[in-house]
Amino acid sequence: MGGNRELAERFIASLEARDWDAWAGLLHPAVVYEIPQSRERIRGRDRYLRFNQEYPGDWHLRPKVTIADERHGVVWFEWLLDGRTDDAMAFFEFADGLITQVTDFWPEPYEPPPGREHLVERWLPSPRSGSRRSHRVGFADGSGARCP
Amino acid sequence: MGGNRELAERFIASLEARDWDAWAGLLHPAVVYEIPQSRERIRGRDRYLRFNQEYPGDWHLRPKVTIADERHGVVWFEWLLDGRTDDAMAFFEFADGLITQVTDFWPEPYEPPPGREHLVERWLPSPRSGSRRSHRVGFADGSGARCP
Repeated sequence: MGGNRELAERFIASLEARDWDAWAGLLHPAVVYEIPQSRERIRGRDRYLRFNQEYPGDWHLRPKVTIADERHGVVWFEWLLDGRTDDAMAFFEFADGLITQVTDFWPEPYEPPPGREHLVERWLPSPRSGSRRSHRVGFADGSGARCP
Repeated sequence: MGGNRELAERFIASLEARDWDAWAGLLHPAVVYEIPQSRERIRGRDRYLRFNQEYPGDWHLRPKVTIADERHGVVWFEWLLDGRTDDAMAFFEFADGLITQVTDFWPEPYEPPPGREHLVERWLPSPRSGSRRSHRVGFADGSGARCP
């Protein structure tokens, strides 16, 4: 379990360092990567490596919370790109000391619905927050630019 | 740690059951609940209880992955409301056998940016997926109805 926690920590650290050999060494050759929000799946270490190597922009990742057990793990991390920052999370499955599945989520800011102001306080937006990784913004119908 | 994992499991199960006494019994009286996407914070068990009791709609929660250690935990769960379903996740902090902090995330579907089709396969949208809890949709400028 300590080993799996370390796998999750090294996953983020080696991505941040662009240490591709170290990063790929954490992954099972048949690893599956999924992004449920866009219904995308990448099969295999080689393609997943290429996906990250080709990922545009000077992005940075900073882990906030890492949790792991003998089978599953998660890193809740902060991403930074083009002067913006926000939270994201990567879930992992482990087997035999390698990562066999990665599933990540990229939540978007939104305005709360009315009706709960009597219970809630709000904090001010960070000058660095408020938008998804720029290359992830954009919808097929062109509406993306208006979405938070 | 087993205790904290059980706290996280019971958090979701008692919410799903609307067993408010059981649910509130898991929480520290000074628990803090945060929704980073909407920059909302609720302080204290009483207000957080009321927030959930007042939450509109016949919502349901189904846990998918639960992970916990001596300090932190997470439940990645599926929510269902009005014939729709999607993923969300709640992170926890624990102290003395109680939940002291809850932070949850409600990721939205989005279309992938172009340029990675050579690496990626996509799966079909579920007939039940594709929209945030209806009462969470809507932005201050009225654009919400167009956002995924």
